[in-house]
Amino acid sequence: MSIITSVETHDIRFPTSQHLDGSDAMNPDPDYSAAYLVIRTDHEDGLAGHGFVFTIGRGNDVETAAVAALEGHILGLDVEELLGDMGATWKLLAHDSQLRWLGPEKGVMHMAIGAVVNALWDLKAKRAKKPLWQLLAEMAPEELVALVDFRYLTDALTPEEALDILRAAEPGREARTRQLLAEGYPGYTTTPGWLGYSDAKLSRLAREAVADGFKQIKLKVGDNLQDDIRRLRTARATVGPDIKIAVDANQRWDVETAIEWMGHLAPYDIAWIEEPTSPDDVLGHAAIARGIAPIPVATGEHVQNRVVFKQMLQAKSLEVLQIDASRVAGVNENVAILLLAAKFGVRVCPHAGGVGLCEAVQHLSMFDFVSVSGTKDDRMIEFVDHLHEHFITPIDVHDGCYWPPATPGGGSEMLAESLAEYTFPDGPVWTALNRQAAKNAVEAEPTKETVGS
Amino acid sequence: MSIITSVETHDIRFPTSQHLDGSDAMNPDPDYSAAYLVIRTDHEDGLAGHGFVFTIGRGNDVETAAVAALEGHILGLDVEELLGDMGATWKLLAHDSQLRWLGPEKGVMHMAIGAVVNALWDLKAKRAKKPLWQLLAEMAPEELVALVDFRYLTDALTPEEALDILRAAEPGREARTRQLLAEGYPGYTTTPGWLGYSDAKLSRLAREAVADGFKQIKLKVGDNLQDDIRRLRTARATVGPDIKIAVDANQRWDVETAIEWMGHLAPYDIAWIEEPTSPDDVLGHAAIARGIAPIPVATGEHVQNRVVFKQMLQAKSLEVLQIDASRVAGVNENVAILLLAAKFGVRVCPHAGGVGLCEAVQHLSMFDFVSVSGTKDDRMIEFVDHLHEHFITPIDVHDGCYWPPATPGGGSEMLAESLAEYTFPDGPVWTALNRQAAKNAVEAEPTKETVGS
Repeated sequence: MSIITSVETHDIRFPTSQHLDGSDAMNPDPDYSAAYLVIRTDHEDGLAGHGFVFTIGRGNDVETAAVAALEGHILGLDVEELLGDMGATWKLLAHDSQLRWLGPEKGVMHMAIGAVVNALWDLKAKRAKKPLWQLLAEMAPEELVALVDFRYLTDALTPEEALDILRAAEPGREARTRQLLAEGYPGYTTTPGWLGYSDAKLSRLAREAVADGFKQIKLKVGDNLQDDIRRLRTARATVGPDIKIAVDANQRWDVETAIEWMGHLAPYDIAWIEEPTSPDDVLGHAAIARGIAPIPVATGEHVQNRVVFKQMLQAKSLEVLQIDASRVAGVNENVAILLLAAKFGVRVCPHAGGVGLCEAVQHLSMFDFVSVSGTKDDRMIEFVDHLHEHFITPIDVHDGCYWPPATPGGGSEMLAESLAEYTFPDGPVWTALNRQAAKNAVEAEPTKETVGS
Repeated sequence: MSIITSVETHDIRFPTSQHLDGSDAMNPDPDYSAAYLVIRTDHEDGLAGHGFVFTIGRGNDVETAAVAALEGHILGLDVEELLGDMGATWKLLAHDSQLRWLGPEKGVMHMAIGAVVNALWDLKAKRAKKPLWQLLAEMAPEELVALVDFRYLTDALTPEEALDILRAAEPGREARTRQLLAEGYPGYTTTPGWLGYSDAKLSRLAREAVADGFKQIKLKVGDNLQDDIRRLRTARATVGPDIKIAVDANQRWDVETAIEWMGHLAPYDIAWIEEPTSPDDVLGHAAIARGIAPIPVATGEHVQNRVVFKQMLQAKSLEVLQIDASRVAGVNENVAILLLAAKFGVRVCPHAGGVGLCEAVQHLSMFDFVSVSGTKDDRMIEFVDHLHEHFITPIDVHDGCYWPPATPGGGSEMLAESLAEYTFPDGPVWTALNRQAAKNAVEAEPTKETVGS
């Protein structure tokens, strides 16, 4: 028997706003960040579980505090018992009646629970000496169903239906594992499409994306219609008719605006429109989907939990479901969402990018292919070429595909040096930036003083 | 000109779990708590704005950290400017693109924004020397519309429609103010109905409720069907046929369970069923509403924001809309929700109880009566007789009604002594409880040691 001896948290921030990487219509100046945790045990194997919540800067301290607040739920507990029944472990965290009040099951506290759950899965996979996708893909259908909290889901998906889906996929597991290792899993790239980039940079990056084997790129839209049309025209001229172009409005519009705006973009053969409006608006997405058909609606990176995804499937709000590794309460809830998508026959194309989201979410898509939906048709994982160098197992993306990681774990472990370097606000990177900012302020001061006094 | 000089936060907790006050099917042992803040200025009037988020214990530290994280958004700013355009001030907080990532507009961070917004309204009302309900009720329709963020609402309510609603209510404002002062605003009581209470206590408290002039009581249900039937029978026998009895499942059920369970309770003439399922489940509530008609569905205390309320109105998920003073982003968002309810002709019966929720939310119902819906018909504010003694202006409830407060402010200011006494974990109340708990643990230790080693 071993027990959990520490839960260590880190407020990690990368000063990405300095380069406008990641800028879109709602997020003009993100500093990609992670509320990061390490779970250690007293086992002689020395293995630790790593997890995080991705945020975009301010508030990462609040998210880190939320993760730290969960320490008491697992510290001192029996590791084998926790990892042996991850369904029960999930409920231990998500069903805490007092913490539930802070959601329930949404926002800061729910994401913090997700980070802890993912860290435990990372540890479980390392102990099993398998990458997470393989660990999940090899679990028995009954074990997978036991991971899921079916509360609030049974009007759309019962445990029996989930079991049927998983059993139906069971015979093909081995063949699809071989296929996955041989073919990889398709990716698409958002790297060319940030709003902060010039048309020349967009064009150059789009050309590179095609050369790199991607079959789809994505452009941010929603800030200015004429700009969007010009950028789409540039992109389409660059990549030709055979490469798909998706667009992403990052929640910028109301229902009517979305329908009208997309009417103007429709001539450019749009693969999907992502986040046209509030991620909470199930009915709004459904109205938009009807209003802009046949352009598919995609959403999910901000969808708070399985209950909202359930409704989006019931109401036909989306045709492309975008899971996120760090928005919901971890692997367990994402297994529930993959099962819902399979039940409704909707394709899953994960959100990624940020910090470590690519590294983490690829495991879920690969597991889905092998043991849930059994298909990669028309599915792909978002790829953004940012910050991968900070992870012990950076994604392996080439020829337009993600290639299955072989390293044990869930993919979320950052390099110890990166944790030290980018700690906010006291790590060397932020200390230097703050020193520079203070220096700039002092240099600007005399003028201000004169005006002010 | 004056500026904001400090934002002071307090983690305040009352050990209510010791008495099972407030226990229900999902919350067996709440410690009613407040993530509390005080905003001070350098103005010579010495006035301060007070606000809070109500929570039920664990996690109150995280909520307090979230409130503290907003300090930088208002510290040093011009008070007159902030209070002069509360619509712009709301957006300053709610539209912070980096903080938005933590929701958007839900959970810990959104509630923290609500506490800051409410504290600013408290300050604004104190400066105007008016109770908040009156301050709001006297604002021009154009000013009220300017408080609302219509983003994501316009498919259900446009600024023009909101203006029409407010203008239509304008001529009757004075008469209804007189009526409110003369008649009070009806309340109903949940005091008899907690799950932790014996049948004898339920019966005694129900009798007292009727004697106190209440026309409705509410019982917690959802833990055990036979218990629910027995308790309802007891309550109905006690209060007779003319007093309404509502029931509250606190999110316990899935859709089918809710419909089935309510079929068994229907013979007891149920005024409404509250929170039958997940507060996120717009479509689930609508299915339940259809399945149990004509019993009305009520919900709202956990509804995260105006976007979800909008959909619940569009989908006919509820017949009774229960606003909460500290769940959404403060007064501004509740004004939006009151306008939505008026547009859809749905009655509003606020959630209250907890810590200070009665004190805060009464202002919104009274404002609604005077200047929005113009009616009190079939509407009432929840009343729970807990913890009012800690507020500088405790509610005045008698003859079954809330009586309009005359003291300037929003009602959320706690006594300085209460703040000191109930600070967690270092105030005198918790220090004593922890000392007692440690003593109990030491006394229990020898046995445990023997078994364990």
